[in-house]
Amino acid sequence: METKSSTRAHGGTQTVHSHASTATGTGMTFSVFTPPGDGPFPVLWFLSGLTCTHANVTEKGEYRAACAEAGVMFIAPDTSPRGDGVPDADGYDFGQGAGFYVDATREPWSKHFRMRSYIEDELPALIGTQFPQADMSRQSITGHSMGGHGALTIGLRNPARFKSISAFSPICAPSQVPWGEKAMGGYLGDDRAAWREHDAVALIQDGAEASALLVDQGSDDQFLSKQLKPELLQAACDAAGIDLTLRLQPGYDHSYYFISTFMADHVRWHAERLYSS
Amino acid sequence: METKSSTRAHGGTQTVHSHASTATGTGMTFSVFTPPGDGPFPVLWFLSGLTCTHANVTEKGEYRAACAEAGVMFIAPDTSPRGDGVPDADGYDFGQGAGFYVDATREPWSKHFRMRSYIEDELPALIGTQFPQADMSRQSITGHSMGGHGALTIGLRNPARFKSISAFSPICAPSQVPWGEKAMGGYLGDDRAAWREHDAVALIQDGAEASALLVDQGSDDQFLSKQLKPELLQAACDAAGIDLTLRLQPGYDHSYYFISTFMADHVRWHAERLYSS
Repeated sequence: METKSSTRAHGGTQTVHSHASTATGTGMTFSVFTPPGDGPFPVLWFLSGLTCTHANVTEKGEYRAACAEAGVMFIAPDTSPRGDGVPDADGYDFGQGAGFYVDATREPWSKHFRMRSYIEDELPALIGTQFPQADMSRQSITGHSMGGHGALTIGLRNPARFKSISAFSPICAPSQVPWGEKAMGGYLGDDRAAWREHDAVALIQDGAEASALLVDQGSDDQFLSKQLKPELLQAACDAAGIDLTLRLQPGYDHSYYFISTFMADHVRWHAERLYSS
Repeated sequence: METKSSTRAHGGTQTVHSHASTATGTGMTFSVFTPPGDGPFPVLWFLSGLTCTHANVTEKGEYRAACAEAGVMFIAPDTSPRGDGVPDADGYDFGQGAGFYVDATREPWSKHFRMRSYIEDELPALIGTQFPQADMSRQSITGHSMGGHGALTIGLRNPARFKSISAFSPICAPSQVPWGEKAMGGYLGDDRAAWREHDAVALIQDGAEASALLVDQGSDDQFLSKQLKPELLQAACDAAGIDLTLRLQPGYDHSYYFISTFMADHVRWHAERLYSS
């Protein structure tokens, strides 16, 4: 692992790192905010949305003040493999920058597009060995849009790993919306049964459990009705008896202005659960 | 004036505007954060540093939460005229992106590079007519690096307009450092007497007064000893009996990670003074 930058911020340290990933077969970059003090600190993962790298939330997310105060380490991975040898597609919603947190099974994507393995296995193992301040027995996860989908699905599949799950304007039911149908079909093929473990609503319908879910959604989000569909998540949680706090925030859109407004709330909500046991 | 975007954030509204400037003879862009509520709100100006536009602090400055809580309108102008018809120079520290908040008197700069008139006269008049929520009888000013120089010099020259002045890592004595000598010589010519009203230390030596100054400076700022020289500002304030609070912040650099760390402090410090009278 190479440390690309280390900058003092909000009393802690914002760092950016790169490493050669075995999961993706490419170099991968991620950022880490370590709060002030000696730790160990619980870890909050933030998975980003379409087109983003680690840099968007690192620069615009406004998480550092809250993480410094609560004593939470904040980790922001990239959203896909990248580089000259990595296949890509026209458009912003498939290929590089749009990994959808799945392990692709279709050619030519299956060689590099293995973001599920990267986030579920490789990167947490790297953090556990390279960051002695990280207490990997206390993890939570959040994310935005495609990354909200990633947070919900990875969180629901790994209840022993994550103490709490939240999301900002997540793609709640990718199997039922254009972004998700394009991505799941492209990466996984036409057998929709294989999509279900990458669909938060389907996972809950199939029995996944979660102690608490927090979702914020802007009412003026241009993708709300066609791509995000939080009402499907609400219905699935209601049917399964899962305690979902879904907040429709009036007047907010899909941007980092929305994310940064509610970021401190999410950090504090996770911190309560990370420090409660 | 054209409103380019309007986005809900932290309970208020972040907007970006453009207009045809008579001072610079170009189109100019600026951003405004209006806090929640009806107002009127006092106004805090933020002048940005070399290479920046309004966008840097708007995206990375982390001022909105504090401005929303304190009830302060936050205005971020561009740092120079820009465009195809505007002269430019090699390097980042002169020409477009480096207006240094002076009215240039030398050709070819004098036609467009009139950022003093723009910030001192034209833009506040526009704000006063276009933003009914802005209370122009209560203004304060801050800025970063070259914009810290701008905040100090414009603030010191206009004590009746500004209730308080602060800066992040300002160029304190441009007449005595390479960035300033290049800019002042290039825009104003070789007569150093003409530079003094654009040099905070010289202004104080020449009798400018300020009720209170707040300056934050990172100890690990790569430009500290060669370009910024806060010790010269401290000496001038000591000699003149001006109450300067100069805080050397250990381990911080020159970046927006430094600015965003102390931004809320500055907003609250200005708000105390803007709401005290």
